Amino acid sequence: MNKSKTLLATALFSAMATTAQAGSEIETLITMLHENGMVSDEQYGRLVAELEQNKAQSVEKDTKIQAQLTEATKPSDVEVKVKGGVTVKTRDGKFSTKLGGRLQADAATYSGDPEMGDGTEIRRARLYLEGTMYSDWGYKLQYDFASTGANGKGIADAYIDYNGFDDLQLRVGNFKDPFSLQEQTSSKFTSFTERALPSAFAAGRHIGVMASTKQQHWSLAGGVFGDSLTATNTSTTGTKHENDEGWGLGARATFAPVNEKTKVIHLGLGLNYRDTGGLGTTSFSQQAETHISGINIVNTGTITGVSDFLKVGAEVATVMGPFSAQAEYITTSVSRNNASDLDFNGWYAQAGYFFTGESRNYKKGAFGSITPKASVGEGGIGAWELGLRYSTVDLTDADITGGEADSVTLGVNWYATPTLRFSANYIDVLDVKGGTYDDQEPRIFQVRSQWAF
Amino acid sequence: MNKSKTLLATALFSAMATTAQAGSEIETLITMLHENGMVSDEQYGRLVAELEQNKAQSVEKDTKIQAQLTEATKPSDVEVKVKGGVTVKTRDGKFSTKLGGRLQADAATYSGDPEMGDGTEIRRARLYLEGTMYSDWGYKLQYDFASTGANGKGIADAYIDYNGFDDLQLRVGNFKDPFSLQEQTSSKFTSFTERALPSAFAAGRHIGVMASTKQQHWSLAGGVFGDSLTATNTSTTGTKHENDEGWGLGARATFAPVNEKTKVIHLGLGLNYRDTGGLGTTSFSQQAETHISGINIVNTGTITGVSDFLKVGAEVATVMGPFSAQAEYITTSVSRNNASDLDFNGWYAQAGYFFTGESRNYKKGAFGSITPKASVGEGGIGAWELGLRYSTVDLTDADITGGEADSVTLGVNWYATPTLRFSANYIDVLDVKGGTYDDQEPRIFQVRSQWAF
Amino acid sequence: MNKSKTLLATALFSAMATTAQAGSEIETLITMLHENGMVSDEQYGRLVAELEQNKAQSVEKDTKIQAQLTEATKPSDVEVKVKGGVTVKTRDGKFSTKLGGRLQADAATYSGDPEMGDGTEIRRARLYLEGTMYSDWGYKLQYDFASTGANGKGIADAYIDYNGFDDLQLRVGNFKDPFSLQEQTSSKFTSFTERALPSAFAAGRHIGVMASTKQQHWSLAGGVFGDSLTATNTSTTGTKHENDEGWGLGARATFAPVNEKTKVIHLGLGLNYRDTGGLGTTSFSQQAETHISGINIVNTGTITGVSDFLKVGAEVATVMGPFSAQAEYITTSVSRNNASDLDFNGWYAQAGYFFTGESRNYKKGAFGSITPKASVGEGGIGAWELGLRYSTVDLTDADITGGEADSVTLGVNWYATPTLRFSANYIDVLDVKGGTYDDQEPRIFQVRSQWAF
Repeated sequence: MNKSKTLLATALFSAMATTAQAGSEIETLITMLHENGMVSDEQYGRLVAELEQNKAQSVEKDTKIQAQLTEATKPSDVEVKVKGGVTVKTRDGKFSTKLGGRLQADAATYSGDPEMGDGTEIRRARLYLEGTMYSDWGYKLQYDFASTGANGKGIADAYIDYNGFDDLQLRVGNFKDPFSLQEQTSSKFTSFTERALPSAFAAGRHIGVMASTKQQHWSLAGGVFGDSLTATNTSTTGTKHENDEGWGLGARATFAPVNEKTKVIHLGLGLNYRDTGGLGTTSFSQQAETHISGINIVNTGTITGVSDFLKVGAEVATVMGPFSAQAEYITTSVSRNNASDLDFNGWYAQAGYFFTGESRNYKKGAFGSITPKASVGEGGIGAWELGLRYSTVDLTDADITGGEADSVTLGVNWYATPTLRFSANYIDVLDVKGGTYDDQEPRIFQVRSQWAF
Repeated sequence: MNKSKTLLATALFSAMATTAQAGSEIETLITMLHENGMVSDEQYGRLVAELEQNKAQSVEKDTKIQAQLTEATKPSDVEVKVKGGVTVKTRDGKFSTKLGGRLQADAATYSGDPEMGDGTEIRRARLYLEGTMYSDWGYKLQYDFASTGANGKGIADAYIDYNGFDDLQLRVGNFKDPFSLQEQTSSKFTSFTERALPSAFAAGRHIGVMASTKQQHWSLAGGVFGDSLTATNTSTTGTKHENDEGWGLGARATFAPVNEKTKVIHLGLGLNYRDTGGLGTTSFSQQAETHISGINIVNTGTITGVSDFLKVGAEVATVMGPFSAQAEYITTSVSRNNASDLDFNGWYAQAGYFFTGESRNYKKGAFGSITPKASVGEGGIGAWELGLRYSTVDLTDADITGGEADSVTLGVNWYATPTLRFSANYIDVLDVKGGTYDDQEPRIFQVRSQWAF
Repeated sequence: MNKSKTLLATALFSAMATTAQAGSEIETLITMLHENGMVSDEQYGRLVAELEQNKAQSVEKDTKIQAQLTEATKPSDVEVKVKGGVTVKTRDGKFSTKLGGRLQADAATYSGDPEMGDGTEIRRARLYLEGTMYSDWGYKLQYDFASTGANGKGIADAYIDYNGFDDLQLRVGNFKDPFSLQEQTSSKFTSFTERALPSAFAAGRHIGVMASTKQQHWSLAGGVFGDSLTATNTSTTGTKHENDEGWGLGARATFAPVNEKTKVIHLGLGLNYRDTGGLGTTSFSQQAETHISGINIVNTGTITGVSDFLKVGAEVATVMGPFSAQAEYITTSVSRNNASDLDFNGWYAQAGYFFTGESRNYKKGAFGSITPKASVGEGGIGAWELGLRYSTVDLTDADITGGEADSVTLGVNWYATPTLRFSANYIDVLDVKGGTYDDQEPRIFQVRSQWAF
């Protein structure tokens, strides 16, 4: 073997020689043939040059294909999801928008006294648009088509969020005051078709500003609020617009010493102060845990000469696997200008059990959606829950006889899929003391079909 | 030639030898050179080893590229379509959502008696969200912004479907009773701007439960219904909510012995029973196939002491290429507690012809959208249809003189695209007998601009 | 060297020889070895055949990969974008749909006389769907949830566009008459929370037909209109529907001799004629550049016996970098049947300055959205604008004493992102002469939080 040839080959193919690479056998062959004297030095030179050129071209071609493949397989900038509602979000998380909604179609039949009028209704029919903008900002607009009317009556959530601070959210717009566990829990996810009797003291939604923080084991929210959307500055005579609307302050703290997926202990305390504004009136009333009839089983009527009132609520709840329980006590103190103060109050306690093994879904201060272990349409029977509730409210004090009512509710919920729920509730109003419906005891059977996403 | 070398080569290259494969010429060459004695056994061994290694690497590289290509060319999990409305659906068909709507902007001018008041209106302005969830479930929420008001007045379709059974659909929520061909056909697709006079007997939408099946040559639907969304349990005095709402039963069967794309024969029969509930009242009225004026040319006013009523409707329709015809007869029997029963009735017959060759689109019991052979904006002139209709309704019986009216309508429709329609209707009310507008004969010219998708 | 071999090689490899190509070194080697006599003619023939076959296969494989790559890297047929709102459009531009909206949450406090009632409100809460269909057609439906009520009160824009002509757009449906710069500028983009006092003469939206053209340096629009959506044909007694609705004609021309990105001179002239229809009444009124209170600081009340009226408006505006200014004068002449004609008028002038260097965004006849140089959430502080406005309106003439008002407004706008705006306005009503609020001088402080996209 010719040593110079070997050296030449070594020089030319040094890199290639270390490990075999695609097509390297031709290099080896050429070198061998050159070493064996089968090709001349000149031929060898030409072959090597051509080989080098082809290798460069091959690398270029592979690079181009890889670039195209990288382009082709990279995720799209925008991701679209559909699961009832539609979510569109940018891959970088800067923007997202969700279009969602809920429908609750109800029917009820009544027995006992008073006559309440069997019937049907669309309880809620809502669409909402919510999302994220420019990373730090959030927004929502939600409308209830079942509650339309003057003054944007159907507008539910309508706000701007600022999420640019760590662990602190600022919100401005129209949204619920932070008060009461059963009010903070969306009607999509409450255990019964209607909230318990102390919902007479619900704080509702107002236009305001709120700061809140939600941690794994506690949450805190506080804000200042104007009046509800339907409030106008119209005077009682209705001819002038000279009265200030009401305003209020609200805060809620929750503590969850245990907060695991299927094991929760929740404690909460809410304060809600409200100045009645120029009109100086307020009222409290509550239906018999049914909405179709429209009858307020307890009702203070309009209370005049009211400067302000304060609601205080205490909450406790637990989840232990398929079992859950929840209770609240709310008291309301009404300050009157030329009469004694009034004290109203109410409480409820409820328990539920999933026969199909699911757990209520606790999310930092409220309950969220139920996901069946196996949905109908995917081979399962959905989630089945049985619930029992006792609730009471007393709207009678001093000269105001709004009445006192107690009721027991038995309910069954069938979550066919995460987006569907069918509920049947039997409500037995045990007694009404005082007020328009003194001594009457209506019984209610009502059903609901719901989609929500 | 050395036999052992040949055997070796055969052993090494057995698979490759059968058919030529990429780069196999180098193998052949190596084998030849080995056979020709140009490379030594040792060199040959090295070359073959290197060749094998390179081939393995090449296969690996190709496999990787193919995997990337498969990933890159596979369809996305979610498909988005836009054609006016927007449809998002998962490729597996489990979920889909469509956002669509319609707008009808009308203007009308009136002559003859009575004075009806020229003007304009948005006849319908609807958005809807509908879709599929978890394979077996469907939902819809549709709202008419032109009909807003108390009690969710603008809510049109709002329901849940269960499609998990073969050939049987269950529906719960708010939707149209199954009754009358012209009512089952969406206002987007009716041949004239307003439905014919017997629309006085339209069954309308109620909250209820319905089962239905739609086959190629027949359909059947039946359900039980509560009252309309705007019904309340309020008594006539308005102070108490003690009256049951009305309820009803409805069924419709259709038969299409011929059902081809451009050739259809349709027969239908509908029954609609309604109990008036606690109030015991009903009324029937109809505008003169025009909506802007608001005048009911025939009107029974409130009929009291009504326990229930039954509507029966017979339908016939045909499509023969560009020609179509349709007729219905509806009779309504009203049972009164302390007075004789009442019988009202009406019928209409209409014919239409597409000068541009399209056919009305029959879809299992009702008519659907028109697709022009060539749309405006895509080089065509759209679809042009001429229609003629005679209709009559009689709301006079016994002590009730609601009046009887007959009218002839001449209409032209221009479907510029599948999503657009411009219509002009001339309505000549031939005569009104009895009632408020006895002996009067208004004439109406009205136009509509519509988008719908 | 064997000449015939060389010729054979040349014939076989003619194409390949010109430039080196992938794998060509093996061809060269084979040819060399053949020329050097290392492989026989027969072997050479076999090698060349195999080479050719492999080359064909290689080309086929590359072509297939390239086809897959082309398929994989081609843009999707439908493009989805999200930036608050969601836009879906087909790549060919034939179809597009955008879902967008706006929210304005306001609060106001009042001092001075009259009592106006502090409070809050959702000023506007709108969603809209707009898009393109079949290349040449456009559509829009916009609804204001804060203005719901009878007769589709909340419907804002609702129309069909035809864009098939060069430089000419046809529009039919419900939309704003072409009149007044501050009215043509969306409330999302006006410099102050409420429009200036001459908004008493706003032409508003009507159902009609309009033709318009928008050029770089001028625009022209003219149309014929029916009445507003809430107009009904009801007579003053309310029992019959015998009155024609009103109708009108409107035209607006604008001229922009300078129209650059940050330098604009705008001149405009608008004419708006309106026939009052069968009722023969009209009225003009205006709030004190605040909406929450609901008090009309000037108000003619209902003027009867009006046949028609004509509004004429002159506009001037400029942008000079961060500075902008705008002024309008509007006069309205009301013709009465049995009394002297009435002349009302008003004007305003305003100036604004962006401390962060942005410019107002002039778009062919109106002002559009502000894009901060650096948004909050992207490392910036948004855009900050200070504005000052003087405005006056006089609704007193002859026997009508609607009153005259002047006011000065100081405003600051913070555009945190292109989709967010927070505004604070201080309005000092300098004087009211005549009318209900004669000699009163309210002062107003109001804030707004807005998202819009």
